[in-house]
Amino acid sequence: MKNTAEKQSKTAQVITPSQLLEHWQGHRRVTRRVIEAFPEKEFFTHSIGGMRPFSQMVAELLAIAVPGLQEIVSGKASKFDENLDHDNSKAKMLQWWDEATEQINELWAKIPAEQFQEHVKLFGQYEGPVHSQIFYFIDNEIHHRAQGYVYLRSLGVEPPFFYDRS
Amino acid sequence: MKNTAEKQSKTAQVITPSQLLEHWQGHRRVTRRVIEAFPEKEFFTHSIGGMRPFSQMVAELLAIAVPGLQEIVSGKASKFDENLDHDNSKAKMLQWWDEATEQINELWAKIPAEQFQEHVKLFGQYEGPVHSQIFYFIDNEIHHRAQGYVYLRSLGVEPPFFYDRS
Repeated sequence: MKNTAEKQSKTAQVITPSQLLEHWQGHRRVTRRVIEAFPEKEFFTHSIGGMRPFSQMVAELLAIAVPGLQEIVSGKASKFDENLDHDNSKAKMLQWWDEATEQINELWAKIPAEQFQEHVKLFGQYEGPVHSQIFYFIDNEIHHRAQGYVYLRSLGVEPPFFYDRS
Repeated sequence: MKNTAEKQSKTAQVITPSQLLEHWQGHRRVTRRVIEAFPEKEFFTHSIGGMRPFSQMVAELLAIAVPGLQEIVSGKASKFDENLDHDNSKAKMLQWWDEATEQINELWAKIPAEQFQEHVKLFGQYEGPVHSQIFYFIDNEIHHRAQGYVYLRSLGVEPPFFYDRS
């Protein structure tokens, strides 16, 4: 009975925690390639229609992912701070990106499956179940990265394939 | 025992099928507002860096959502056809959008929870578990809609709020 229940429970998962982590990290690998594709200067300066340069969008993504997960894991309020001292260096941003990749994996292992349905408030204001917070992190990354795709196209640079998550 | 197992199974869901449907439809409501925000002419003509007009991206989204779900539900191969006879009318595209909203709800009800982990091939070529297919539908929509946001900004039009899914 227990085995059957466990099997059913596993089978009936829409997406498991480890699949969701891989889904996110797959998207993060694409975002990393978009950062790499930018010419150094334009990463920090290029803009369309008064929007932020892609570097500032990436700073926002970095300010959300690890601090947001830390708050989910610890229950302690995180500060939202996207004013990174990146020194206008793409290499520095890529280094932070890779450090965040490892930290996300470590923090993810501390989220029990049951917690994804728990209600939390992040950064002192955003409320909802844990799964909706994490999908917001991912969706917000897809959203800003796609704006980076348009920036690249307007610079005559071919962006990486959207569908290649390897 | 059965009740406990069912309760645990429910609690341990990262995201339930009905939550995922609502997540998608929330995004589709945002996309609808982006379509509405476009000036009629520019919806079919405006482009940056050689990219498609937003109307063609929306045609792609319509060609994926309902036909993709139909294939998941029926197991019968769907044809990918984004050559809609929209007659350069935003009203026509919005009508199709709303019809797809209803069809998605109806088809979703026919996908048992267990099916999200099943492996399928869609449109004759895209392979993976059902959950990854559906996340691809959603992520591809977020991706192209965000490109529509840049188009709108470049036209001096304020896009709808990304975070408002109501």
